[in-house]
Amino acid sequence: MIISAHNSKVQLVRSLLGRAKDRREAQAFVAEGVRLVEEALAADWPIRFVLYGGELSERGQELIKKLKTKSIDSEEVDERLLQALSATETSQGILTVLDYFSLPVPTDPSFVLIPDSIRDPGNLGTLLRTAAAAGVQAVFLPPETADAFAPKVVRAGMGAHFRLPILSLSWKQIHARTGGLKVYLAEMEEAISCWEADFRSPLALIIGGEAEGATPAARQLASQQIYIPMPGGSESLNAASAGAILMFEIIRQRAFAK
Amino acid sequence: MIISAHNSKVQLVRSLLGRAKDRREAQAFVAEGVRLVEEALAADWPIRFVLYGGELSERGQELIKKLKTKSIDSEEVDERLLQALSATETSQGILTVLDYFSLPVPTDPSFVLIPDSIRDPGNLGTLLRTAAAAGVQAVFLPPETADAFAPKVVRAGMGAHFRLPILSLSWKQIHARTGGLKVYLAEMEEAISCWEADFRSPLALIIGGEAEGATPAARQLASQQIYIPMPGGSESLNAASAGAILMFEIIRQRAFAK
Repeated sequence: MIISAHNSKVQLVRSLLGRAKDRREAQAFVAEGVRLVEEALAADWPIRFVLYGGELSERGQELIKKLKTKSIDSEEVDERLLQALSATETSQGILTVLDYFSLPVPTDPSFVLIPDSIRDPGNLGTLLRTAAAAGVQAVFLPPETADAFAPKVVRAGMGAHFRLPILSLSWKQIHARTGGLKVYLAEMEEAISCWEADFRSPLALIIGGEAEGATPAARQLASQQIYIPMPGGSESLNAASAGAILMFEIIRQRAFAK
Repeated sequence: MIISAHNSKVQLVRSLLGRAKDRREAQAFVAEGVRLVEEALAADWPIRFVLYGGELSERGQELIKKLKTKSIDSEEVDERLLQALSATETSQGILTVLDYFSLPVPTDPSFVLIPDSIRDPGNLGTLLRTAAAAGVQAVFLPPETADAFAPKVVRAGMGAHFRLPILSLSWKQIHARTGGLKVYLAEMEEAISCWEADFRSPLALIIGGEAEGATPAARQLASQQIYIPMPGGSESLNAASAGAILMFEIIRQRAFAK
């Protein structure tokens, strides 16, 4: 059992829960909680190691057995140490260090999401979770958006990270990879409504940050601006909510529109 | 200028930022930030008093002038004291104590939202914000849902509190008030899809909490279960995202379906 805060695994976890720079250098990130560790295992994600405390649920103990059967390095940590290490207020009893790794992007994707300047980690994670549910085939993250592997993004993503290709790219690379796609940009005004746009052709959807709106690079990439009509007369929606409405409108049109 | 943490206004704010019980007893709640104070003022919301710090933005200083013109009790507070008082990490320079007050519910509402067991304040606030944008006419909060006037809910609501009738009710009262409405319950399965349901008649929409699903009372109230098809094969959506998709599908059908 690990009891020292100076243990190298404990120190690695602490640094990975912190800055994006440290995650990039280590080429690794942390996922916490029984559910996320289960999902990483089910997805055959490259797992470096697992740490767990002494107060795991029955489901958690089953998971540890399974991890050990698969010879995945799993070590018990002093409960208080795990508690102190956790990114959440109450430790979830288990965490894993995973390789940075990207699922392959399909050759000709027909549904790509580009979260533009999404700085709030909860919003970014929720967008990724919704994208996984909507069957989005790839997420391209421009430099202005939060790190997709920050602890809060991974938590809000609820496993989306293990199902979606998520690529951090420059705008130049995004440009190159969206050549064959119609690029829609969600805007507040001067645009056609999402119910009048035709989303049946292969497309990329840019969801802008709430604070400053779309970046100039996003505007340049976009071929069509769209907006969500708001009968209540509000100024705006939360970025994750706007993204959910648009992604599922795309799905609806593809399932139902002739 | 207020410089003491024992000042009665400061103490009231501190208690209102805490427990729901204290808000109910005082029949008041707190809204922070220039934008929310502006919205409360624009909505003619009953304002008890305003506190502000010395480092307000120009827009904030304009607001203070306007508040004083309207003889609203506005007092400067020591910046560090305001900082310590704030519910957010960085104080927004201004906050107001507002009366508990509910906008009138229209006589025959055709679009009601019932957030069922939504315990996460950020999710509840985001749902309220989306409801305001969608033109929802009333929100009925059952006992299992978080307090709509908690600081995080008010913040995520982005002014929805000043535009939407929000009523905390027992399930019995909700039953009585939804008599003429078709009640839809968002479920994961065994239901018709939201794209096949007909949302044009007057309705109430129940959005359940993520953790435990719908409460028995919500199930009893519902006349039709609906689900959001998820081509990506995920288990679930964030409650606020699911609510956004459904509220705007209702709006779309009412605008476009014949």
